[in-house]
Order: sequence, then structure tokens, then C-alpha cells
Amino acid sequence: MAKGLTSRAEDYSKWYNELVSKADLAENSAVRGCMVIKPYGYAIWEKMQAELDKKFKQTGHQNAYFPLFIPKSYFSKEAAHVDGFAKECAVVTHYRLKNDENGKGIVVDEDAKLEEELIVRPTSETIIWDTYKNWIQSYRDLPILVNQWANVVRWEMRTRLFLRTAEFLWQEGHTAHATEAEAIAEAEQMLHVYGDFAEKFMAMPVVRGIKSANERFAGALETYCIEALMQDGKALQAGTSHFLGQNFAKAFDVKFQTKTGSVEHVWATSWGVSTRLMGALIMTHSDDQGLVLPPKLAPIQVVIVPIYKGEEQLAEISEVANKIKSELEDHDISVKFDNRDTHKPGWKFAEYEMKGVPVRIAIGPKDLENGTVEVARRDTLEKQTYNLDEVVPTVRGLMTEIQESLYNKAASFREEHTTSVDTWEDFLKIIEGDGGFVSAHWDGTPETEEKIKEACKATIRCIPLDAVEEEGKCIFSGAPSKRRVLFAKAY
Amino acid sequence: MAKGLTSRAEDYSKWYNELVSKADLAENSAVRGCMVIKPYGYAIWEKMQAELDKKFKQTGHQNAYFPLFIPKSYFSKEAAHVDGFAKECAVVTHYRLKNDENGKGIVVDEDAKLEEELIVRPTSETIIWDTYKNWIQSYRDLPILVNQWANVVRWEMRTRLFLRTAEFLWQEGHTAHATEAEAIAEAEQMLHVYGDFAEKFMAMPVVRGIKSANERFAGALETYCIEALMQDGKALQAGTSHFLGQNFAKAFDVKFQTKTGSVEHVWATSWGVSTRLMGALIMTHSDDQGLVLPPKLAPIQVVIVPIYKGEEQLAEISEVANKIKSELEDHDISVKFDNRDTHKPGWKFAEYEMKGVPVRIAIGPKDLENGTVEVARRDTLEKQTYNLDEVVPTVRGLMTEIQESLYNKAASFREEHTTSVDTWEDFLKIIEGDGGFVSAHWDGTPETEEKIKEACKATIRCIPLDAVEEEGKCIFSGAPSKRRVLFAKAY
Repeated sequence: MAKGLTSRAEDYSKWYNELVSKADLAENSAVRGCMVIKPYGYAIWEKMQAELDKKFKQTGHQNAYFPLFIPKSYFSKEAAHVDGFAKECAVVTHYRLKNDENGKGIVVDEDAKLEEELIVRPTSETIIWDTYKNWIQSYRDLPILVNQWANVVRWEMRTRLFLRTAEFLWQEGHTAHATEAEAIAEAEQMLHVYGDFAEKFMAMPVVRGIKSANERFAGALETYCIEALMQDGKALQAGTSHFLGQNFAKAFDVKFQTKTGSVEHVWATSWGVSTRLMGALIMTHSDDQGLVLPPKLAPIQVVIVPIYKGEEQLAEISEVANKIKSELEDHDISVKFDNRDTHKPGWKFAEYEMKGVPVRIAIGPKDLENGTVEVARRDTLEKQTYNLDEVVPTVRGLMTEIQESLYNKAASFREEHTTSVDTWEDFLKIIEGDGGFVSAHWDGTPETEEKIKEACKATIRCIPLDAVEEEGKCIFSGAPSKRRVLFAKAY
Repeated sequence: MAKGLTSRAEDYSKWYNELVSKADLAENSAVRGCMVIKPYGYAIWEKMQAELDKKFKQTGHQNAYFPLFIPKSYFSKEAAHVDGFAKECAVVTHYRLKNDENGKGIVVDEDAKLEEELIVRPTSETIIWDTYKNWIQSYRDLPILVNQWANVVRWEMRTRLFLRTAEFLWQEGHTAHATEAEAIAEAEQMLHVYGDFAEKFMAMPVVRGIKSANERFAGALETYCIEALMQDGKALQAGTSHFLGQNFAKAFDVKFQTKTGSVEHVWATSWGVSTRLMGALIMTHSDDQGLVLPPKLAPIQVVIVPIYKGEEQLAEISEVANKIKSELEDHDISVKFDNRDTHKPGWKFAEYEMKGVPVRIAIGPKDLENGTVEVARRDTLEKQTYNLDEVVPTVRGLMTEIQESLYNKAASFREEHTTSVDTWEDFLKIIEGDGGFVSAHWDGTPETEEKIKEACKATIRCIPLDAVEEEGKCIFSGAPSKRRVLFAKAY
């Protein structure tokens, strides 16, 4: 166990908080519920952003930027949306401060009260559809395929770094289409973009599905989601894609002239992932030694640590290290050679283990003699000695192998923790035991879903897209059901 | 003159506003002073971001993210800073809304009043130095070289798209150092990063200099800046880099143990550029036909427009066009083949001229016969016909030639509009005439600077870094002066 890191078995929640701090990913700020994303954490987020942004552009989307503030009245325009988003939020009421009368500080200037309060965006459907109104007249203006990278604020009462913060970073796609079918196809396409990203880059297996009505986005007709399973048996919603129907077009009066000359409301989607993915990444792979990163998202993929006494030995080791570094970099592998003399090798080993660097190469005096290096994998903690000419091909191979191995390990874990049950007793036994996904029949009513949640905190994570038609009886009510859905306790 | 675009001679300000709109760069939003950056405008900003981010990382900086909100009291901690930034700002006072009593909308919930108001960041020195306090104990923790890409809000009363908006996008670097010399070197390094970016990527010549005390950043000991000259003879501050001394370290009690064991306050810098650069880019190069973009920042560097009658001809032209496109793309040149049948070639020509695409290739039936294409430069509006085998090398050459030519044109303009004057009469004649930079002696006092500003709205843009020592008399007061400074009216 890493020094000072609580083990997962002891206290999973504490382990998570300590790991986020010790791996230098993020910390709580002085502002309630808002986090500081530290450079190492942000570097991982940047890798996520870069890959997602590439995928968005490959699927025809462009980035744009819309205002941080939304007039209060906009939220009232879409009935479901206002209940979902406009309640717990940051409200700007004034636009000026002034010196207070005793000159000891600054106070709000009551003469500078806004006529209409502004809400710091919790999501941007309203302001964007108000803008689209002016962009769309004819079918020629469609589709609009726009994404925004932005910060949003939701005044959460109980916050946790990355998982639930008052301010978080995200991307929100907002698209406008001429037909229902096209909008649905877009929402589904983006679900799969997210799913592929989660599996191929985060090495995190996800279930692709649709939400029950209770769990749907406020204003959506259908919410698609990817759901992942964390090591503690709780599910985490990692991304959502919404088919919004014509709800926002109607709320903001966005119509277009069709090819045949009729005038219709526009069809919409929105979709987003956030810095919450950082929490998912951590809780999918990390262990009691600290963070474990899949190579594709590791800011440093390989670290080289010299073990030496004196300047001369360091110089010899540096020569070998820099040659390996340069060759690996030629293969687009990012390498850090940590030759700092302020820290001992043992300290460095622990540090890079904590930070989840996928591969560590150590070079000591014996290695110099033998023409070898020691290569250690972060995921398995295995160490092996290689001849110098084997190092580069070995490390290249490990980049793929570790990525796949992490995925397979997480997939096995999920398989072992996904259970089909047919009785309420078995359901409770699992939900209140090891947790995980529980595949069970449900009568399709929001009432039953609510009662199950009240009974054991489990919610319907999704109706998997690949769910098969199967006659059954609802686990709770006994009423007939046509397919199994996935339940779990969730973050 | 482009259809519907006011000429610069007629009304420069109107020309600017119309161009920003017609080139699809940005528009005013429903929220006072906040803009919507449209996809085409955002694509240019993304190119700026990518290049700057690369330069920041090459100089050892890492990105991080700090909270959007800053507790009100933080601003009072640095005396100069509070006057400069904490007055005209967006103030969050409540964290919840509720349905109003007649059920017709939502109102602020007075039970959800914050104990301390939060300010939407106008700049992040205070929250960041409050954070650094916990990051810095020893000289080993220094330097901290961090940058943040973020949105900021300053409640401007008179706003103009890109140039002055209530919310804008920017980057802000915040560094912490063990010594004064190191912090000054950092501030100067970043000034040169900005200067090189402006000149090599934006093709915009800039004067590197330092600000007079009046124009200094609130809280800085020295503000370095790059100043550019717009086509209407007004200057534009395009980037600033501040040496903050120990002001913020003292305000937030950030000390470190030196190598020798003593305890000292940390030295600081901050530096930033914003979406204002978009305004500078537009006003440096564009003409009465619309936007003109340097190839290095053009989202589309080459557009190919087919001129055809019927499907068959289009197919033949497409074959030629796609071959050229693919070959240019192999040389990392971005190409759009606009084969839409919804718009005529003439409409497309005007559209891409308005949007500043550096090179247009037109292919018509005659070209098919002759094995030629027509190549048009956006900057000079020159057209020339080339044989097919000449196209790729020609266009590749144009990428460099247009970039350089735009820089040279802007540099010549600035040279023609920079005047050394020695009398107040000559000074006024130029400032109230064609404008431009005026190089003149100044007695070094804030009072004189203020009086000159009152008299004719000209301000000291900077004391150029390369200013030579020269005995002279202040243009206004007649008092002795040791060097010339640059005056201009400014955006």
C-alpha cells in the first residue's frame, strides 16, 4: 500500500479523495463546491479533450462559444427544463461593487441592480436555441452541428472532486435538424462516439442504453447514456446524448421552411461529457498504490529514473537514458527523464506509481555494466530486466498491452458484477451486498422505479440498447415486463 | 466593394461591425455585452489558441484550471487591484430560484442568499495566489509555471464585438518565482512569446514596450505590452505581461524557505491575451471586400469552386479538384471543395472573399479543355491561370508569400504612420489628423500624461524596449526628458 493512502477495502470513498489529492489531480478551492484542477489532472483532461474534439470534428461538428449568462426568463420557456435546471444555480443580481462607508472593504452597489437576473449557465440549451432562432430560416441552414467547450455551474449541496462539483468543465453539443429521423440518428451517433472513446481511450467498458423517463434530461424525449461500473460496485453515468424532439424549437419559436415550402419546427439534440470522466477514469483502474492510467491518456507514458552515486555515474546513465528517450519519442511515446538530484530513487518510484505513469524504466550501475535496464509496469507492478536493444520494442508493445489489459480487467470485473435476478430478495441481497449491475424485469412505470429507489437506493441506470425481448415479471410489482433493465446504486 | 459592406473610408467603425457579422465571426447575444462567437470565428480563435498553447508548453508552462468565482473579500487584499478590477463586475448573491407565487415564472429565493457575495472572475490573480499559498513552502516548489484558458467577465458599459465585451475568452499565465530577476525574465520572455506570435502568425507588426504608471495593470510593478497599429490610425494593445513583484505574495501571505534557510515572499508574474486579438487581426489586414486572413490562421486556406453546367461536367471538374485537394492536403494545406449545388459560383466567390480565404481556385469548362485552373489571391485580389502541374507548387508558395506580404504591408503602413514630433502643435496636428503612432518626448509624470489625454485623447501606448537615450523636452510641459515614448489614440 502506498504510504499514507487508505486502501480501497478499508474506505473506498476516503481512498478516492486521498488519491485525487496525492496524485496531484485536483483540490477543493476556497469557493464552496468549486475545484482547482491541478496541472497533472488538467493534462489528463486535455488528452481527453483532444481526442473527443477530433472525433467531433470527424463527424462534422464545429466549435463555437455562447454566453456564460442566461436571462432568468429563458428558463421558464421550456416547462420541463425549468424544473430540472433553474433551481439550484448561481444568480447574478448586480453589476457593481463600491467602497463601503467606513472604507474598509467593498460592498454591493444597490444602485447597480440588474433589471433581470442572470443565471450562470447550468447547461446552454436555452441561450443556444434563442440564438439558433436567428440562424435558421430554411432547410438550407440545416443541419447545424455545433459543440461548445465550456464551464457550467450547478449549485450542488454535496460535492466531490470531479464527480460532483458546483462548477465543472464540459463540452455540450447542440444540433439542429430538419427531420426527426436525422436528429435521432445524431443523438445515437454521439452516444457511440462517447462509447468508443470510453472503451478505446479510457479503457473503460460501458453499457450503451436509454434512460427511463425518471432519469431523462429535463426537456428531452429520449436520453441515451453510457454507464460504467466502478470498483466499489456503484455505477457511474459517463456521458449522455439527448434527443430533444421539437421542445426547444417550440419554446424559442425556431421554424424553418422545408424543401416543399411548408414551415416546421426544427428538431434538436444535445450531448455532453464533463470532468466527471476524470472520476470515472480514476475509479475504474486505480489501486491501493495510487492512480493507474491507460497509456492513451497518460500525460507521461514512460518515466526513466536513474540510480546513481556521483556526477560521473549520472553522466553515464544519462547518456543511455537520453538515447532511449529520444528513440521512444520518435515513436510518439512521451517520456520524462527525472534526473533531479533533490529526490532519491525510492521517492521517485513511489511518486510515479502514485501518479499512474504506465511504464517506469530504472537504470543503475549494474545495468550500465550489463547493458540492461529494468522495466516496470504500473498496472501489474511487474518488473523485468531487458537488454538495451530490447527496450524500445518492449515499451512500444507495453503501450498496447497495458491499454488492452486494463480494458480486459475492467470488463471482467463488470462481468463478475453483473447479475440477472428474478426475485426481490435476490435483488436486495446483491444491491445491499457487493453491488454491481443487476439485470432485472421492471413493469415500466415511474412509480415502481421510485419505490425501488426508496427501498434500496438503486436506480435504473439504463435500458441497454442490446436488451432482448423477453417475457418476465417485474421484480418489485410482479406486473408483466417485456425486457430486463439494468439497476445499480450510482454516483 | 463587397455587396452591403460599408467601405472603410466611409465609416471605419461601421465597416468593422458589418464585417464581423457578414464574415460569420461573431454576433451580439441577448445578454448585454456578451457575444456569441460563431463557428467560423471560433475556428480562427482555435488556431490562435493551438499555436499559443504550443509556445507556452515549449517554454515550460502547464495548464490548470481555477474557480470561476472569487469571494468578494479577496479583492480587498491587494490595494491597487481592488480599484482596477472589483468595481464593474458580475456579482453572484444567491444560489437558488423558486416558482413565484402566482406560478407564472421563477424568482430569486431570498432564503438562498450567500453569506459572502461571489464575483465572476475579471482576472484570477487573487484566487490563484490564495491557492499557491498551499502549494509553496520551499524553493524546491518553485518556479510554478501555470497557464489557464478561461472566460472572464468585466462589466463594460460600451461594448464592441471582440474588442470590448462583458465576457471574453483569454488565457492568463500566473507564475511564481524565488527571485526578482527570474520573475522579470519570465515577464519579458512571455512578452516576446506574444510579440513573435503576433508577427509570425497574425502577420501583425507590434511594438514591444513597457507601460507608463498610469496604464499599468492594477497590482503590477511593471507592465510589458505589445502594441499594434490599426488601419484607422488607432493603436490596439494586443497583449500584456506583468511583473507583479511581491504584491500578491504579500497580500495572500505566500512565503518560501530559500536554499539558505531564510523565509521570503514569492515573486510573481501574470500575462494574458484574449479574443481581442480577433479584433486586432481583422483591423490589421481586412479590406472593403471583407476579411483578409494570413494563411497560418485561416481555417480554410484554399477553396476550390467548380464552374459547371450539369452533372457530367461537375463530375469531370470534381476529379481534377479532388486530386488538387488531396495533394495540397498532403502538404498540410487545408482545402475546401465547395461543390454545393444550392449556390452559384459568383455567390461563392463573394462568400469566400468576405471570409478571407487566402487562395481560391476556380475550375471551369475552359480549364478542363486546357488543363488549367484559375488561382486568385485574396490579399491582392489578383487572378492568374496555371497549368495543372503548376498548381500545387504555386499554392504552396502562396502560403508563404501571402503571409509575408501581409506582414510587410502592415509594417509599411505602420512605418508611414509613425511620426517623430517635437512641438505640441505638430503633435495635435497628427493626433487629430491621420493618427498613427507619435514618437515624442514626455516629462515622465502621470500628471502630464493625464493632461495630454484630456486635451486630445491620446495616451502613452508604451515606452518601446528599444527606445534610445536622447535628451529632449516634453512635448507638453517643456520639462526635460530622456527618451521618446509612443503616443496614440487607442482602442
